[in-house]
Amino acid sequence: NICFKIDEEVAKLLELKAHLGGDDGKHQFVLKTAKETLTGKYGEDSKLIYDLKDQGGELLSLRYDLTVPFARYLAMNKITNIKRYHIAKVYRRDNPAMTRGRYREFYQCDFDIAGQYDAMIPDAECLKIVHEILSELDLGDFRIKVNDRRILDGMFAVCGVPDNMFRTICSTVDKLDKLPWEAVKNEMVNEKGLSEEAADQIGVYVGMQGGMDLAERLLQDQKMCQSTQACAGLTDIKLLFSYLQLFQVTDKVVFDLSLARGLDYYTGIIYEAILTQAGVAPVAPETSNEAPTEECVTVGSVAGGGRYDGLVGMFDPKGRKVPCVGVSIGIERIFSIMEQKAEASTEKIRTTEVQVMVAAAQKNLLEERLRLITELWNAGIKAELMYKKSPKLLSQLQHCEESGIPLVAILGEQELKNGVVKLRNVATRDEVDISRADLILFPALLLLDHHHYHHHRHSDSH
Amino acid sequence: NICFKIDEEVAKLLELKAHLGGDDGKHQFVLKTAKETLTGKYGEDSKLIYDLKDQGGELLSLRYDLTVPFARYLAMNKITNIKRYHIAKVYRRDNPAMTRGRYREFYQCDFDIAGQYDAMIPDAECLKIVHEILSELDLGDFRIKVNDRRILDGMFAVCGVPDNMFRTICSTVDKLDKLPWEAVKNEMVNEKGLSEEAADQIGVYVGMQGGMDLAERLLQDQKMCQSTQACAGLTDIKLLFSYLQLFQVTDKVVFDLSLARGLDYYTGIIYEAILTQAGVAPVAPETSNEAPTEECVTVGSVAGGGRYDGLVGMFDPKGRKVPCVGVSIGIERIFSIMEQKAEASTEKIRTTEVQVMVAAAQKNLLEERLRLITELWNAGIKAELMYKKSPKLLSQLQHCEESGIPLVAILGEQELKNGVVKLRNVATRDEVDISRADLILFPALLLLDHHHYHHHRHSDSH
Repeated sequence: NICFKIDEEVAKLLELKAHLGGDDGKHQFVLKTAKETLTGKYGEDSKLIYDLKDQGGELLSLRYDLTVPFARYLAMNKITNIKRYHIAKVYRRDNPAMTRGRYREFYQCDFDIAGQYDAMIPDAECLKIVHEILSELDLGDFRIKVNDRRILDGMFAVCGVPDNMFRTICSTVDKLDKLPWEAVKNEMVNEKGLSEEAADQIGVYVGMQGGMDLAERLLQDQKMCQSTQACAGLTDIKLLFSYLQLFQVTDKVVFDLSLARGLDYYTGIIYEAILTQAGVAPVAPETSNEAPTEECVTVGSVAGGGRYDGLVGMFDPKGRKVPCVGVSIGIERIFSIMEQKAEASTEKIRTTEVQVMVAAAQKNLLEERLRLITELWNAGIKAELMYKKSPKLLSQLQHCEESGIPLVAILGEQELKNGVVKLRNVATRDEVDISRADLILFPALLLLDHHHYHHHRHSDSH
Repeated sequence: NICFKIDEEVAKLLELKAHLGGDDGKHQFVLKTAKETLTGKYGEDSKLIYDLKDQGGELLSLRYDLTVPFARYLAMNKITNIKRYHIAKVYRRDNPAMTRGRYREFYQCDFDIAGQYDAMIPDAECLKIVHEILSELDLGDFRIKVNDRRILDGMFAVCGVPDNMFRTICSTVDKLDKLPWEAVKNEMVNEKGLSEEAADQIGVYVGMQGGMDLAERLLQDQKMCQSTQACAGLTDIKLLFSYLQLFQVTDKVVFDLSLARGLDYYTGIIYEAILTQAGVAPVAPETSNEAPTEECVTVGSVAGGGRYDGLVGMFDPKGRKVPCVGVSIGIERIFSIMEQKAEASTEKIRTTEVQVMVAAAQKNLLEERLRLITELWNAGIKAELMYKKSPKLLSQLQHCEESGIPLVAILGEQELKNGVVKLRNVATRDEVDISRADLILFPALLLLDHHHYHHHRHSDSH
């Protein structure tokens, strides 16, 4: 392939140039995320890292996620405990599919807790947060699947998977949310060379779902018991569920042995949240020949995360570890679901928070409108006016209806003479004269909806 | 230069590769900001655009500012009026200078009003917004310098600057905030070849500062009057100041004929805000051999903008224009000033909004703490706990003092028996027993500071 040869040639030339010191040596102060920092952290996903070549000829990449940079930040700054969220863009060298909400540049929203703490307390808090976010956003019913990397590894061991095949079999198991067991088994046996017996044993386990009860049952499981790793994971799952009960979130959390998640860096608990309600699905099936299942349709993952106790140590010169657990919220997907819901509903979504439109009933009142809006702005009230010297009253009112501004403060010769403003409710078309002093002294009045406002006025006049 | 030759070779190879179709043709869906979109918009600043070469071999660049992408967005989506703010990262291929707050990657914060409106109304609103931001942030005294590209061009014309030298003389005038007039004149005459007579005439004008009065005086100025352009600009400055008076911001706004601003795309009013108070200066002089002036020391620009009526049309296939005016707030510089102020003050800056720490007075109360924090979280109260099974009370209280958490809800055997929580004010060390029902029913109580809270308690007991 000629393109490949050109790439090779280019890389060689750039390397030569880098050795020669680059353009003018001016680049020495830049903090760079070199490709070497990123590779080897994402397992089979590494191919999605978006490489760049900068003008100095160095090999650079765009940020792939927020977790690896977070770990690098902790190590570089010797931070041993922190709790933070981070909303920022990441980049994937993937085939973009706009209709499925898959882009090359998109936002991630991460929350992580780093530090040496007692088992499962921060882990439970992460799940509580996912539960709270998905409940508050009112996206329909959801489930949070939970598993543990140690249970998976222990399971592979007791099922007879060779050590060096754990990771590749794990990424095959990860496909169970999209493919039926037969297809997954086929990949394990025919593509990856696992024995059929091992695959069948895995098949029994990965069909299991439950709660604390399942963890207890598996701790009694003759085969599973053989793995110390699996037992440690199961004991932690039990403890986790006891905390989740206190957090009142066990209604949505499922211990699911088929949950694998692809990334290499997880060391303990892993989890993934999915919306289960059909009808809000923004995400078409990944493969078009897939038949929709009859029951509860999975509409895709909207959050995921887990424990990664080894990652910070990989960036520390002395290998000092900082245990971490975190979650990534799929805000792009969540936003597209919310937009779909908004489009489907009759309710209009406002794009501004403007509470009052300052309008004129007659011509040549621009100066008076500017004076009034200054009073409102200075009192902290969100107000706007049309940028015309003499806009028509009708067009000012229409603008309010179109953009959902609830109130209009109308000025006319009469109002100016009386020192009042005619306050009009756009929805009900009710109008009431209010003194300018009142308008400024009681801005909160404007923030009440019109029922409250009128109620208040009526009480006043009693 | 060998590096230059390598660059040439690399560019040729990449171009060849691009013609051949790149790796595998997978890149066809990416929205790209090609270098061609960016060049020719920034005048002499174009050299700061941060170019990249992507894997497909196309010539790409990182976003240089938010204005050009905004104009391109309007043209591509045929938007004829919009008002929006945008906070995002931009990139400059500049020499980074961390100590002076100059980075290659930094945030910009822009506000723009696009649309065909009556003169100077949106322009005045932009200045009102700058005034409001700088006042609210309490950064010390500031000035907003205002000028108009048409006044500058008219001034150059009547002073005898040849048409083709307007832009280059303009960027020399722009240096007047950093260099004395003699140095600026020297550049005009000896470097750029302007006649000494023309330079001296410019010197008279660029020393002028004032308000509406100066605009009126210049409209009577025999020389300035000869330029229709300058007259249009001066008339607009007059109108602008009349609106600024109504907006109550003329105390900080100065009409300053030396304000030039570098960018090519401005067509009308231009402005720049500077902090004038010495002592909060985070920015060292650009040139180290510069002597500090005795009077009011300029600590650098913190906002700037202007009118750019032609930019959207440059991206529209039919050249349809959308007039725009906008402002860019220097949030990086503002943040570094605020950080300096915070460091200098004794007041501790809190990094979290946590209101209540859920603590235990005895061992083995983790479950009770989890139960209580769930009650608080579910009631919308910001609470946290230590991720330990049995933390010491002292370390829990110390954590509150370190991180500024104002209240501690302490659980002990006695409190659990009585169905109460001991609510401790961290600052005053006052403690009061409060029933758990009250804690949940009246979360607002927790948000009051301790004076209010105690006052409330005392009133209750009367």
